[in-house]
Amino acid sequence: MGGVRFLKGHGTGNDFVILPEGTPELTPEFVAAVCDRRRGIGGDGVLRVARSSLPGVEWFMDYWNADGSLAEMCGNGVRVFARYLAAAGLAAGTVPIETRAGVVRAVIGEETISVDMGLPKVYGDSSARVGGLELPGVAVDCGNPHLVCALPAGLPLDSLDLHVPPGHDEEFYPSGVNVEFYVPVDEAHVRMRVHERGSGETLSCGTGAVAVAAVALAASGRDTGAVTVDVPGGRLTVTFDGAECHLAGPAVIVASGDLLQ
Amino acid sequence: MGGVRFLKGHGTGNDFVILPEGTPELTPEFVAAVCDRRRGIGGDGVLRVARSSLPGVEWFMDYWNADGSLAEMCGNGVRVFARYLAAAGLAAGTVPIETRAGVVRAVIGEETISVDMGLPKVYGDSSARVGGLELPGVAVDCGNPHLVCALPAGLPLDSLDLHVPPGHDEEFYPSGVNVEFYVPVDEAHVRMRVHERGSGETLSCGTGAVAVAAVALAASGRDTGAVTVDVPGGRLTVTFDGAECHLAGPAVIVASGDLLQ
Repeated sequence: MGGVRFLKGHGTGNDFVILPEGTPELTPEFVAAVCDRRRGIGGDGVLRVARSSLPGVEWFMDYWNADGSLAEMCGNGVRVFARYLAAAGLAAGTVPIETRAGVVRAVIGEETISVDMGLPKVYGDSSARVGGLELPGVAVDCGNPHLVCALPAGLPLDSLDLHVPPGHDEEFYPSGVNVEFYVPVDEAHVRMRVHERGSGETLSCGTGAVAVAAVALAASGRDTGAVTVDVPGGRLTVTFDGAECHLAGPAVIVASGDLLQ
Repeated sequence: MGGVRFLKGHGTGNDFVILPEGTPELTPEFVAAVCDRRRGIGGDGVLRVARSSLPGVEWFMDYWNADGSLAEMCGNGVRVFARYLAAAGLAAGTVPIETRAGVVRAVIGEETISVDMGLPKVYGDSSARVGGLELPGVAVDCGNPHLVCALPAGLPLDSLDLHVPPGHDEEFYPSGVNVEFYVPVDEAHVRMRVHERGSGETLSCGTGAVAVAAVALAASGRDTGAVTVDVPGGRLTVTFDGAECHLAGPAVIVASGDLLQ
């Protein structure tokens, strides 16, 4: 890895190692080594900056999970990718970004960056088991599978033990599921926690926030509008305009440096 | 934190943010922010490089825990500190380093760095509870309290669930305890895992390796000699010469960079 330039950034605590344009093609071993939190730099994934070959699209986000597997799309990852482009003077305003799941549009603000996420599909009922409780929930597809459980009144969000994965219906979710728990603050504002399949509880999950916002919006009898979503790592806003939804929140670059090993 | 230069290094997976000479005095808030693994650089602690005022001692290791508290001494920390000095051309061979627990001597080799650790004191019997089992162990003082448990034959080291802290005698250890579990490989070689109070299971613990080596050495009927200690993050060697003991193993600098936030 010696000599490779990197940056580190995060969006509401979802963190990434950013490899600027010119970084050679990645290998799973390199990605896993650089994302190792103790023996490397550490991150939930790697965002390699590359050029898109699509007409009208300048940038391609080559996104890898921390374990060295390829990933299609990551809402917080795109927001951090766009922050890097802006900080490096490579983009401003609205920038289309090619991902493996298609082209998304990032809108770069001074503190907030928003990205369009497509419309989530609420498609059924299921339930999660956590700490001896069976909690009813709603299945939501955001490109990846989610189970969104509103907590019953009187059960504090902080009381849930998410050190162990919540139980789920394995026939309904044969490939596993990301499980969100939320409590309403008011009609357009919720607090949530998320257990991501393969990662455990995380500080933030872009598609999880979108899934919760979709369920909370429907619960308030609306199909358009904004929902403020407080995740453990900060505050996101999800806005539904009828055609698509937009995930907005802070994204920062924390450090830049060079790998020496 | 903007503009502060840093390096990141580790010794057998015990990792540190190194702040070179000239870094201003630290605050607990700064240390906690820079050690935050998702919103900062991430590390088990910070090693600030400063000058010693003691005669014949050039360097002072200003060591802080990740939570922003001050720490006296850390065997792997000193080894990484010495690797930084060597990599930066500031020291070679044998270098005395002032710590809050006194002056220690680091011997810098090409791959391995060893540091003298003082002699651990084996001082009593106690026991740990893990996964429904009560395991007898030996109390060892390395400046900090340890409980070293040899696993009974047939109980694999990997089978222990250390996600929850092992139970211990709270009257015997009123300030908590670091608990080590080990299995012998041969008379002078053990494999161990460690649960550090306040940190959970870690990849490596210098004083934990010393405590285990002392118990294993005694179990083999010796009071001097070397013990190879395999921790989850790599291989350490602890050598007892009768007067003191020496902790040796790899220490590497992984990256250098600048904080931007």
